[in-house]
Amino acid sequence: MPISLGELATRFGCELIGDPDSVVSGVASLPHANPESLTFLASKAYKEQLSSTKAAAVVLRPDDAPDCPVAALLHDDPYACYARMAAVVCPAPTYAPGVHASAVVDDSATVAPSAHLAPRVVVGERSSIGENVYVGPGTVIGPDCEIGDDCRFIANVTLARAVSIGKRGVFHPGVVLGADGFGNAMSPEGWIKVPQVGGVRIGDDVEIGANTTVDCGAIGDTVIEDGVRIDNLCMIAHNVHIGAHTAMAAMSGIAGSTTVGKRCMFAGMGGAVGHITICDDVIMGAQSFASKDITEPGTYLASFPAEPAGDWAKKVARFRRIEALQARVKKLEQK
Amino acid sequence: MPISLGELATRFGCELIGDPDSVVSGVASLPHANPESLTFLASKAYKEQLSSTKAAAVVLRPDDAPDCPVAALLHDDPYACYARMAAVVCPAPTYAPGVHASAVVDDSATVAPSAHLAPRVVVGERSSIGENVYVGPGTVIGPDCEIGDDCRFIANVTLARAVSIGKRGVFHPGVVLGADGFGNAMSPEGWIKVPQVGGVRIGDDVEIGANTTVDCGAIGDTVIEDGVRIDNLCMIAHNVHIGAHTAMAAMSGIAGSTTVGKRCMFAGMGGAVGHITICDDVIMGAQSFASKDITEPGTYLASFPAEPAGDWAKKVARFRRIEALQARVKKLEQK
Amino acid sequence: MPISLGELATRFGCELIGDPDSVVSGVASLPHANPESLTFLASKAYKEQLSSTKAAAVVLRPDDAPDCPVAALLHDDPYACYARMAAVVCPAPTYAPGVHASAVVDDSATVAPSAHLAPRVVVGERSSIGENVYVGPGTVIGPDCEIGDDCRFIANVTLARAVSIGKRGVFHPGVVLGADGFGNAMSPEGWIKVPQVGGVRIGDDVEIGANTTVDCGAIGDTVIEDGVRIDNLCMIAHNVHIGAHTAMAAMSGIAGSTTVGKRCMFAGMGGAVGHITICDDVIMGAQSFASKDITEPGTYLASFPAEPAGDWAKKVARFRRIEALQARVKKLEQK
Repeated sequence: MPISLGELATRFGCELIGDPDSVVSGVASLPHANPESLTFLASKAYKEQLSSTKAAAVVLRPDDAPDCPVAALLHDDPYACYARMAAVVCPAPTYAPGVHASAVVDDSATVAPSAHLAPRVVVGERSSIGENVYVGPGTVIGPDCEIGDDCRFIANVTLARAVSIGKRGVFHPGVVLGADGFGNAMSPEGWIKVPQVGGVRIGDDVEIGANTTVDCGAIGDTVIEDGVRIDNLCMIAHNVHIGAHTAMAAMSGIAGSTTVGKRCMFAGMGGAVGHITICDDVIMGAQSFASKDITEPGTYLASFPAEPAGDWAKKVARFRRIEALQARVKKLEQK
Repeated sequence: MPISLGELATRFGCELIGDPDSVVSGVASLPHANPESLTFLASKAYKEQLSSTKAAAVVLRPDDAPDCPVAALLHDDPYACYARMAAVVCPAPTYAPGVHASAVVDDSATVAPSAHLAPRVVVGERSSIGENVYVGPGTVIGPDCEIGDDCRFIANVTLARAVSIGKRGVFHPGVVLGADGFGNAMSPEGWIKVPQVGGVRIGDDVEIGANTTVDCGAIGDTVIEDGVRIDNLCMIAHNVHIGAHTAMAAMSGIAGSTTVGKRCMFAGMGGAVGHITICDDVIMGAQSFASKDITEPGTYLASFPAEPAGDWAKKVARFRRIEALQARVKKLEQK
Repeated sequence: MPISLGELATRFGCELIGDPDSVVSGVASLPHANPESLTFLASKAYKEQLSSTKAAAVVLRPDDAPDCPVAALLHDDPYACYARMAAVVCPAPTYAPGVHASAVVDDSATVAPSAHLAPRVVVGERSSIGENVYVGPGTVIGPDCEIGDDCRFIANVTLARAVSIGKRGVFHPGVVLGADGFGNAMSPEGWIKVPQVGGVRIGDDVEIGANTTVDCGAIGDTVIEDGVRIDNLCMIAHNVHIGAHTAMAAMSGIAGSTTVGKRCMFAGMGGAVGHITICDDVIMGAQSFASKDITEPGTYLASFPAEPAGDWAKKVARFRRIEALQARVKKLEQK
């Protein structure tokens, strides 16, 4: 949506250096911007791209303004400011209200008049869909679900049953919410399935990435608080509780009944074992998992970055003999 | 389904301490139970919750009975006993037989009269669906599949082709069975796809979690034996063979042509490389993978739990110089 | 498709030892082959299975011919040669052109007359489907997508939006292409979504495995070059660039804005952090991830194979005291 720099500056509290009547109609990176593009400079790593940008305007820190060859929108947090502006310049698509003829909505379900149900959507018994919700093609909303206003389900999302979601959630394709948790009791005849009767409760402003799964609770609910962001291919097991504004990068997993605090960050391919508590403001490194309660905020790690195979093999060989090394040192000390 | 304590005790071989006519109609955890709830105490970790429970009855070990403030159902394995009882109190939903008008069933397929095909199901050429099978919304059963009695496909499950499944299987949303294995031959012109012509054979009483994939065999079948339980987001590659009653937690992966024994357990985010054999009764720790044959039952590990980043960084720095340390010790010894 | 050994030898440049009029109509492994099967011997590990095979013919190296009890098709690269032959003996299924009555195609989309759209397919605004494309059941092709000739989408694939694909691509069930990348800016009020406005560009001859996700670019496109092969449950984040003929085994992940060179191989459960560059011809070991630029071809590792838990625990205990060990050695040296 075309918008003038003057209006952007006013709406988002920036100082503008440049023509307020200049108009942007898209976003781009510094090197690929054209005279109708809004762009930004947030990381020093990209500073060298600034001098040659052809953008209409750059959102950047006041410090960087002297080096900006085009109009500048000054903000102390240029990335967050750009994010807000980009949502205006490139708004999410809107959809006319209505239910496609190929959608199948159970008689006991309710759909707000302003909601849009795309082709091949299924809505189950007793579920309700709020105002302005977009339910994309192929999405299945099972029984006993409650969807708050302004949620968007892009396509082929599945809510198995008993999932309640707050407002403004975004759920990407392949997301599965409310499937049975992994509850099995061993017996002499093999595994006995433990019925999973809890649901999933998700707060406002939650976004969940493609093919991520959030299981229902065994007894009681799995809970994801407001503002949580989860990337693709993550696993949230039964009865996990994720605190507000926590973010998890792709392929993270939280095992059953673990509680994660607020504002935590997981860097991907790691997570936490079951039945532990992680306090607020914890950062877990890539491919690192918490094995016991974490009670102090901070960064936690357990991974080794890859190195040339020969170097690594030598170290692993030494590591395999680390006990012997220890014994040799002890012997030397005894001399 | 409401049921009396007396009937539960009789059906599941428990001693009942309490009123046999008292009725339970749901399940709950010890702290959240109400006077109509059945609950259980299996782990000492939750013993302190026992004294204040408001449950109708608690399934627990005879040892714990003296501390139970409400009716007690005594069993040596309270978790398994609870699992069996909960399946009666909270039975899986049942569905009227029939094929929804929006389902598309190929003329050459057969569907048992007692099966239920939900909206938007597709059944391909020559496939057969057994008695009392539930095929949930959006599920695609490709050609040449054979589905045993009493299986349930929750929603949006995909069977690509040539999958045969025994009785009573449960398949959660997003599961993909029988997709092509990762078979590629290098050539000067790049990768050549190796046709994947095998199928998938799954035994009785198998449950597979959301978004897990089980590939078809390259030649011959991928096999999952009776009673196997696989959690979400796992990967079973082509020509893998999983022994009966093995359980795999989320994000486990077994690479191609590997054989896993019976009653193994995988704790998640680990697995096994290809072309190896793991014997019966092996437990693989979290984020640990087997790199060669395992011939002895037992627990196998290869992961480091996360610790504060500074502590970890120091250790990794030392590890990077472990060869030098070894050399220094050797030098000392030579003196 | 039945074919004579003589014709196979001629088409694929093999020397044939045996009857050129003998016909094969299927493929099998050495031990399971029958007199109508084509099979192959590529790895010495299976050499012992050669003498008892009942196959019609074996593709193998000239060196192995003397030990072959049946007809032999000689080739220096028997696996690649077998792959090419198997594609003729067991061709991918073909589909009559046409759009199933239950498919929903937007008026602004174009579908080539030779394409096949299966039941319940959805094609969005302004998208185009090339000649001979197969779009399997339940597949959703969102708006602004461009699908090259001869692509196949097996079933329940989702293209969120703005995905362009070259020719002959194969996309397995549950694949999600073009979903929003994980772009979030922190603010005092919590995460702000950064609009993801780029697309996905995929070259010719690309195959992507079940439940793998490839996100759209934040700004600019995520790119996968010609001939890339990606296995199941992998994650390709926003603005990643994967070079031609790279292959990634299951559960690999490449974080945002990373560039991977040509002909790289990832062994599974590893990958790369964001914003780095990996040169051509790099092999990453299982469960190993690159944490910084890799500028030299070769093999890179960072994983420890599992070992018996007691042995591992001792090593980890020593590792936890590696700093103390270092200090003790230093002290000894000072004496």
